[in-house]
Amino acid sequence: MSAISELVAALSPEKVLTDPDVTDSYARDRTFLSPGKPLAVVLAETRQDVVATLRWATGHRVPVVPRGAGTGLAGGATSVDGGVVLALHKMTAIRELSPADEIAVVEPGVITADLDRAARQHGLMYAPDPSSYEISTIGGNLATNAGGLRCVKYGVTRDSTLGLEVVLADGRVLNTGRRTVKGVTGYDLTGLFIGSEGTLGVITAATVRLRRAPSVYPATIAAEFTSLRDAAAAVAAIIAAGCQPSLLEMLDRTTLKAIDDWRNIGLEASTQAMLIAQSDAADGPAVAERMAELCTANGSPFVAVSASPQEAEELVGIRRMAYQAKERLGKCLVEDVCVPRSALPYMIERIEAIAARHGVLIATVAHAGDGNLHPVFVFDHGLAEPPPNVWAAADEVFREALEMGGTLTGEHGVGLLKRRWLSLEAGPLTEEIHHGIKQVFDPLGILNPGKAI
Amino acid sequence: MSAISELVAALSPEKVLTDPDVTDSYARDRTFLSPGKPLAVVLAETRQDVVATLRWATGHRVPVVPRGAGTGLAGGATSVDGGVVLALHKMTAIRELSPADEIAVVEPGVITADLDRAARQHGLMYAPDPSSYEISTIGGNLATNAGGLRCVKYGVTRDSTLGLEVVLADGRVLNTGRRTVKGVTGYDLTGLFIGSEGTLGVITAATVRLRRAPSVYPATIAAEFTSLRDAAAAVAAIIAAGCQPSLLEMLDRTTLKAIDDWRNIGLEASTQAMLIAQSDAADGPAVAERMAELCTANGSPFVAVSASPQEAEELVGIRRMAYQAKERLGKCLVEDVCVPRSALPYMIERIEAIAARHGVLIATVAHAGDGNLHPVFVFDHGLAEPPPNVWAAADEVFREALEMGGTLTGEHGVGLLKRRWLSLEAGPLTEEIHHGIKQVFDPLGILNPGKAI
Repeated sequence: MSAISELVAALSPEKVLTDPDVTDSYARDRTFLSPGKPLAVVLAETRQDVVATLRWATGHRVPVVPRGAGTGLAGGATSVDGGVVLALHKMTAIRELSPADEIAVVEPGVITADLDRAARQHGLMYAPDPSSYEISTIGGNLATNAGGLRCVKYGVTRDSTLGLEVVLADGRVLNTGRRTVKGVTGYDLTGLFIGSEGTLGVITAATVRLRRAPSVYPATIAAEFTSLRDAAAAVAAIIAAGCQPSLLEMLDRTTLKAIDDWRNIGLEASTQAMLIAQSDAADGPAVAERMAELCTANGSPFVAVSASPQEAEELVGIRRMAYQAKERLGKCLVEDVCVPRSALPYMIERIEAIAARHGVLIATVAHAGDGNLHPVFVFDHGLAEPPPNVWAAADEVFREALEMGGTLTGEHGVGLLKRRWLSLEAGPLTEEIHHGIKQVFDPLGILNPGKAI
Repeated sequence: MSAISELVAALSPEKVLTDPDVTDSYARDRTFLSPGKPLAVVLAETRQDVVATLRWATGHRVPVVPRGAGTGLAGGATSVDGGVVLALHKMTAIRELSPADEIAVVEPGVITADLDRAARQHGLMYAPDPSSYEISTIGGNLATNAGGLRCVKYGVTRDSTLGLEVVLADGRVLNTGRRTVKGVTGYDLTGLFIGSEGTLGVITAATVRLRRAPSVYPATIAAEFTSLRDAAAAVAAIIAAGCQPSLLEMLDRTTLKAIDDWRNIGLEASTQAMLIAQSDAADGPAVAERMAELCTANGSPFVAVSASPQEAEELVGIRRMAYQAKERLGKCLVEDVCVPRSALPYMIERIEAIAARHGVLIATVAHAGDGNLHPVFVFDHGLAEPPPNVWAAADEVFREALEMGGTLTGEHGVGLLKRRWLSLEAGPLTEEIHHGIKQVFDPLGILNPGKAI
């Protein structure tokens, strides 16, 4: 019996796809990276499917690439030659949602926004909201420790995760963490799996923390600026004043222009940057007014303040359009550096200088309150991958971020895309320890080889 | 040259204590556990001292027990025969405090409350506040992932830590994490060290996150109840109403009686429990009123609401006296179970039943908002360690907590004290992985042997 027949026997024929025309559609994420040819795609529906697949993979030493919705931006789910793609998007059960304990137990294929909506039925929310939250899965969010717009106030995926059910490389099932909000029995294995990009195990359920949803809509402002420096100064002022925004986003002119060309937002010729900020506090409208004043004091000629939930949604909607608007301009290399908050204005200036020097179009949005920037390097639709000047510019952006005490990736992960810069940040001792830990969980090296570490 | 002479040569004579009368005072934490006889105590003043000690220890295969202020409640810093106690309480530098980035870089010997006070000079605060915060160190807090009173709103030590400088068992220096609030480059080694009780490396600096200090004093209430059940119902009501208290503590009658006998707080004969709650939100006084109403609605015959910072401090002061008051009654076995919040009233009832069945005096305080209970088992001052009925009662408390989906330890750590119950919670697969990870960091097993895992 061939290896694949054994896999089919262990699962069932409809769960194992081998037609190349079909498997190809599971081989990529949202990057331009060329995938390897997978042997098969497994459509897992249960934990037992994952167990059977990993037992089989261990027996045959076949690489396994776990996959959620394929919305990743770093190549973490890009398939490898001769491997199996373990697709988890059909594991969509919310196994439990306890309003009394403010937790939910969810499977990895649950769409992030669906979990949030389920929580809101009970006056709760699931706080992490990556820009992709309408299309990305909890499993993918866990794999990259995804952030989002609200994480300036509520933290990243790690901060909302209490425990995990994980299938190890050899098919054994490990439960980590707990249902309680605190606990320190043994090492923090939950944290170790989060952000490990499927290299240590396959998450089949997560116990996540829900939070009380604000009882009012978030008061929202959008402020235009004639320079990025002014916008960055307003960010610092908003933080220093203790406004505790629940969202604080910055968009540069290139991004705004792309959105305006697509959806006509009435962009002024003099506008070089926009800040969008929210407060979901009980005194949100007063905080929003205060943030608007601070924008004006830092040179904003025009600040819109939402007067209704619809207006708030429209202002934030500008931000949510950013990625799609840029994809209309060309292929995108989406980067994700994060710098100490005080370095934000310098980092933005460096990015502009690098773009000019290399003749590259870079459109930047930032989760400004976190110092997390997404410079998007746009290149020609006709090219298979970024031309040399884009790589050279990206290389300089990474080095600048590290020099400022920052990191290569705030929330997208290392994947395949940033592995060549990893040693600049991690250094040899950290890499030695990463590989030692990998060896503990996956001695045969079958889990998502070539990614993350 | 003897091993100790080599250690003295590598450091300096005044940093190496060997007189047994002196070393004995570094051999214990706050538990009753009998320590082993240490060879020596090293008083580290710099990272280099730690490096030299660990290089020496690796060369001679001598066990090393890291120690902060010795305020631990689980025996994590209890010395071992023939080992060295590596005392870190002299490493007290706040290397950096950046208001713009809202971070500080601190050495492990810094007293937790001192860091908080330093932050408040800049309108910031260090949120984690274990009850011991005036005497415990940041290093000890990191070792156990300490919680505290405010963690119901701000999270535990892990949630305020961005990066670490760690000396590994062989003396190499590892930097983990970053200065940024987000980042996902490589595995979460920062989280792995936090709560590992000195078994994976010795932390010589931490980059911690500071938060804006509330601009007003926290509005505070103290509500008396004639039953623990009513108090627990009020906790559930306060959480469900979305009050987001910044502190929510419960004290049982045995604890209140001990405090009253010591400091005369005018305890009513009918009072069986007290809730103390704070809100540090902008609308704190209104939230406090709402919490007071919810206490009244759940049967509290008397609720005090603070009208000044002094009154607020006095009300919380009752809680802060709890541990010392109990120590006057006898020797204390302090436990630290945590259960899902909804299980709090059941857990309290079980503890009362267990106390009655075994004829043991158990006084319980709880970080009620987190479901984290500290049942304190009081036994005779004349005994060296708990008598069998205390251990039998503790055993039942642990098992009940685990049965409710809880954990053995919310914030004190496993140390020596809870190792015999560890496998009940962790299970063999988790233990296998713990030991695999330990092997990566400390292949000779010299770091705090016999603790935590």
